[in-house]
Amino acid sequence: MEYCFGVDIGGTTIKMGLFSRADGLLQKWEIPTKKGTDPKPLLGDIAEEMEKCLSQNGIKKEEIAGVGMAAPGPVNEDGLLRGAVNIGWGDVFLGEEAEKIMGISPVFIGNDASFAALGEYTFGAGKDASSLIMITLGTGVGGGVVLNGQILMGKTGTAGEIGHTTINPFETLSCNCGKKGCLEQYASATGMVRMAEKFLKESDKPSTLRQFDKITAKELWDQAKNGDEMALDIAIYVSRLLGMAIANACYIVDPEMIVIGGGVSKAGQFLLEMVQRAYAENVFPHCRDKKFALAKLHNDAGIHGAAAMVFEKR
Amino acid sequence: MEYCFGVDIGGTTIKMGLFSRADGLLQKWEIPTKKGTDPKPLLGDIAEEMEKCLSQNGIKKEEIAGVGMAAPGPVNEDGLLRGAVNIGWGDVFLGEEAEKIMGISPVFIGNDASFAALGEYTFGAGKDASSLIMITLGTGVGGGVVLNGQILMGKTGTAGEIGHTTINPFETLSCNCGKKGCLEQYASATGMVRMAEKFLKESDKPSTLRQFDKITAKELWDQAKNGDEMALDIAIYVSRLLGMAIANACYIVDPEMIVIGGGVSKAGQFLLEMVQRAYAENVFPHCRDKKFALAKLHNDAGIHGAAAMVFEKR
Repeated sequence: MEYCFGVDIGGTTIKMGLFSRADGLLQKWEIPTKKGTDPKPLLGDIAEEMEKCLSQNGIKKEEIAGVGMAAPGPVNEDGLLRGAVNIGWGDVFLGEEAEKIMGISPVFIGNDASFAALGEYTFGAGKDASSLIMITLGTGVGGGVVLNGQILMGKTGTAGEIGHTTINPFETLSCNCGKKGCLEQYASATGMVRMAEKFLKESDKPSTLRQFDKITAKELWDQAKNGDEMALDIAIYVSRLLGMAIANACYIVDPEMIVIGGGVSKAGQFLLEMVQRAYAENVFPHCRDKKFALAKLHNDAGIHGAAAMVFEKR
Repeated sequence: MEYCFGVDIGGTTIKMGLFSRADGLLQKWEIPTKKGTDPKPLLGDIAEEMEKCLSQNGIKKEEIAGVGMAAPGPVNEDGLLRGAVNIGWGDVFLGEEAEKIMGISPVFIGNDASFAALGEYTFGAGKDASSLIMITLGTGVGGGVVLNGQILMGKTGTAGEIGHTTINPFETLSCNCGKKGCLEQYASATGMVRMAEKFLKESDKPSTLRQFDKITAKELWDQAKNGDEMALDIAIYVSRLLGMAIANACYIVDPEMIVIGGGVSKAGQFLLEMVQRAYAENVFPHCRDKKFALAKLHNDAGIHGAAAMVFEKR
């Protein structure tokens, strides 16, 4: 029982990892995501990959402590995945389905952002913290809460969904989720680009950002670092809303640490410090020196969290 | 070890209760709060009351499982009370001080709003829930989070401080805490009165609220119930911000239930339903039918939570 599989199901690819309790990640690879309304074919692909991996490594099924599987949707406390729109699935008890198809038990499932948070907590930036909130700045804004080694899943599976907390009650445009004023509308890669375009349109101020046909979040942060005044204003604006949302989350769970990951976090220390400053401006004095760190495991956070879940429970 | 004391230290009075494990609250009373920078005289008063109570009831000190003590300030995970401005205290390890003076051990301390939440969870409105957030609408807005029977205290003792989450990032006026746009500026009794005065000033619309020299939160809700259009607009406005802040908190911890207490909650079902509607408009469809309830224990929630803490730990 010294091995496990960590699986992270994304909209495009499925990341897989073979882990040992003693040495962590031994091997990782990816397969394409089979979309559709029925999860069985996709689970069949994963099962096949596992069999191959076991025979290649001379590991018996009985040596596998279990499987952790991150899914791109909310998972409630009964293990019910409440749909995964990017793949085409409705509500499904994904763990039970997987156990039947893989012939391995138990299969633990959870939300991908929450598993990424557990991955950073156990193996990455949060290794020395007792509790953390992780925020993933990508196409959307994801989040996960880990308290004393446990993912906070929540009654309906939406704990940690910081991207859809309302940060602007006066917003008139709708978020992808249907409501208005979500953090994701400002602090995701897409949201940052939207803000940049808005700032540029509403002013005549010269800016190096104007040279791009299509601005990206990367360009925004690069130009801000280069000292472009307008890019810096935009970076400060989105960081302020992000810091505020993090302060709000800390006023609910008050963790030891904040970890920021996702593609946008490649802007690095520059972004981290801007967000941390905005956080500190929005909390009581005695809460100001919270630890902030950049994520370390990047795309592998999910499989690491999935493995951590198995080894912790078994 | 079948008895305990529950104590709730407020800015004006200290509430005390003698509890038995089998029958709950046996006796309750109040004494005035001795203010000052040194907590010892106040702790001495409490100790004296306890001695009297024990001798009156023929209970030996050895039969006391412990003391739970709610304090009006943040208490961090090491048991350090980070000041109680209403009384005059700075940072103090209140539990250790109390154990010395009372000669009873252990003394568990915690934030008053968090203990009230635990009280409702164990003995009140949340008796059948596995987790809850309680929000107290009084002069300020307090809050507490209980997950699986445990108060979430947080690293710095500020978990549950929903009153100081930012709900309006564009506010220009400062909250008592120093920052701008806190929920408390709109949804506390004081905040609601401020909003009412603002609405009345900015419009000529007739309103039964105009008959009062000094509007109170109670009058606001009474007039809204009576069908005064402007009072209703104000009630909807503050309920919307409150519902939004609750939705934000639920997107972080996602509890089974929301309990609303404090003086303003006397507006009852009318207020509760308005807040619940605003909540539902600000969350994903599958989170909409969260349980909402009014608090049941009122001013006794704190001592009940303090007692629950002792009996649960011992």
